[in-house]
Amino acid sequence: MRKINIGLFGFGVVGEGIYKVLEEKPQLNAVIKKIVIKDASKPRNAPSELFSTNADEILNDDEINVVVELISDADAAHDIIIKAFNKGKHVVSANKKLIADHHKKLLDLQAKNNVSFLYEASVCGSVPIIRNLEEYFDNDLLNYVSGIVNGTTNYILTKMANENESYQDALKAAQESGFAEADPTADVEGFDASSKLAIITLHAFGKKIDVDQVIRKGITSLKVEDFKYAKEKNYTIKLIANSKINHQTGEITSTVLPTFVELNKTIALVNNEYNGVLIGSSLSDEQFLYGKGAGRFPTSSAVLSDISALKYDYQYSIRKYENQEEGVFNQTGKKRIYIGFENQADDVSNIFDEIEERYQSKNYNHIVGVIDIEKLKQKEIIENPKLSIIAFE
Amino acid sequence: MRKINIGLFGFGVVGEGIYKVLEEKPQLNAVIKKIVIKDASKPRNAPSELFSTNADEILNDDEINVVVELISDADAAHDIIIKAFNKGKHVVSANKKLIADHHKKLLDLQAKNNVSFLYEASVCGSVPIIRNLEEYFDNDLLNYVSGIVNGTTNYILTKMANENESYQDALKAAQESGFAEADPTADVEGFDASSKLAIITLHAFGKKIDVDQVIRKGITSLKVEDFKYAKEKNYTIKLIANSKINHQTGEITSTVLPTFVELNKTIALVNNEYNGVLIGSSLSDEQFLYGKGAGRFPTSSAVLSDISALKYDYQYSIRKYENQEEGVFNQTGKKRIYIGFENQADDVSNIFDEIEERYQSKNYNHIVGVIDIEKLKQKEIIENPKLSIIAFE
Repeated sequence: MRKINIGLFGFGVVGEGIYKVLEEKPQLNAVIKKIVIKDASKPRNAPSELFSTNADEILNDDEINVVVELISDADAAHDIIIKAFNKGKHVVSANKKLIADHHKKLLDLQAKNNVSFLYEASVCGSVPIIRNLEEYFDNDLLNYVSGIVNGTTNYILTKMANENESYQDALKAAQESGFAEADPTADVEGFDASSKLAIITLHAFGKKIDVDQVIRKGITSLKVEDFKYAKEKNYTIKLIANSKINHQTGEITSTVLPTFVELNKTIALVNNEYNGVLIGSSLSDEQFLYGKGAGRFPTSSAVLSDISALKYDYQYSIRKYENQEEGVFNQTGKKRIYIGFENQADDVSNIFDEIEERYQSKNYNHIVGVIDIEKLKQKEIIENPKLSIIAFE
Repeated sequence: MRKINIGLFGFGVVGEGIYKVLEEKPQLNAVIKKIVIKDASKPRNAPSELFSTNADEILNDDEINVVVELISDADAAHDIIIKAFNKGKHVVSANKKLIADHHKKLLDLQAKNNVSFLYEASVCGSVPIIRNLEEYFDNDLLNYVSGIVNGTTNYILTKMANENESYQDALKAAQESGFAEADPTADVEGFDASSKLAIITLHAFGKKIDVDQVIRKGITSLKVEDFKYAKEKNYTIKLIANSKINHQTGEITSTVLPTFVELNKTIALVNNEYNGVLIGSSLSDEQFLYGKGAGRFPTSSAVLSDISALKYDYQYSIRKYENQEEGVFNQTGKKRIYIGFENQADDVSNIFDEIEERYQSKNYNHIVGVIDIEKLKQKEIIENPKLSIIAFE
């Protein structure tokens, strides 16, 4: 078993958590040799000689064989990861946006330098979704991955559903409880979920998809009235990230959309800041993985699992993506959709192929019907903040 | 990637399912070369030249590198597995009783012959519990594994809870639906769950426990009145298999007991034939794995995942149990317990250390209180069919 000497970038709650566990558990056979931080003046709960502001003290130290990258600055993180690869160091990261945006390049560089690049913490915190997709499910048999991968939006949606709160009030509560950031855009607009979905899709189907091509709608347009409608029909509303493959054509469809979920379905039971992912395969119906998606302990736990795996030279298996062409998107077809809107001037019934249900009132209106995805994808529809767009499962 | 030539023992629904998938998916790079069955006269949905009644046609064929053992006769299976190991063949099995009863010996033989022995299908069907315990959770950080690992009893308990059925009626319904066997003893008395718990415990904590030492009570004594009590208190009743470790002392406590579970807890949502397991670690709170625990497709799926893993020489990591002494049981301490009984002559209030609640009526009685586990373990208590013993979580 290999001895792990870690160079840690970043000493926030997760970094500090990992430092403490490794101190308390010498049997894990991993130590932090150096911690690089930006601000040398901040007081830290670790011996001062561990700290430096110079990245080279990690990158040029040949005894350090593992770089754990936990910084928020994506450009700096990108730079560190590439330098670490070139120095023959393994890398553990939790930086989903960075990984989704540069996935192919990072995996190529990892392979070229014959090092491991592990990033379980980047998707659903402590829920071992990547490891299960990698190790347990043969991608030939996988049909879809679908679930709740963003804890911030799930916390807000749970509050909206259970307490009839408006989006603004629920967001405020989430911010006060530490479940949403001051600038919540990445979460509430579904960008974070799209990055995670792109990472999941590669590990599920072995195909790289472009995160910008995910059909994405966040939760900011959802109204109290939408939840009323959901309740009447025994639904709740969840932000569902879904990738599915057509094994005949190899085409992948990836969406991040507010979705009506029947209350008796497994995924409806994922509430508050929790994440839950269904993995559908030809053989075993659905597997469901559930746990905390973010936060100090869940993220530390995922990072520690990756560190442990490096002791026996674990790598995500190149077999899943080597010689694979880029994923082919098929973002076409038809979808059953609900669109809610306050002002009848925003009526978009003309984009529906077929209208099943239409409700009009002084305060709120909605249409349920079938839409061609090509029409739904138009910016003036999917990016229109006045339209509450909710998919049916 | 290694090419897999399989010798299959048994051609029931699971065996046939695996045969079909491997036929349809040549890219899995695994073929069944020979199938050994007991009854040569039965019609089979596969070419007749594949079949034989002579085990040696698999065991003595050097081209066959993987034995998949799917037969019900435990003694014959034991014999086949040991012979296969000695011939240097890897083995995939779903035979939980056999594995739990001979775990140490089989693992030793596997190591001695440097082959892989994989048995994900033996615990919770397609739910990748062993693989996750092995690969993802460092055993130094795991505190407990707890959940529903037997689909038959869960189906019966769900019917009793939702439809106010008696145990006998619910058992009959389970048998008619194919969820319980004609002789249901192994399931309903908790033997099956105890075997699975012993296997789980080894992979969770790296320590072998003796399946006979598990504190075990099945579901056969449960009464409609017990479910009435549960409902009043917002509980349901589940057969919970639980192993927990005290990291200070290394002591393990393992129980399979009917248990009151609060309705809003994750585990209460596992209904019908489904299985669900919570994994508790120091860092990540709880992870929850959920899926179908048995049946043709879930079992086939788990067996196929094991076959796939053999292509890259996967082994359960010896690191978890080598140089480990036998697990130390600490089946002592105190436990909060409900005991229900029809006849006041069966009153066992004298074994309680402390009684919190006592209910007496013409038809049914119950006591809630704290019992010393030493007293609970007495055969005349825990094996008394007139006592409905239910633990609190």
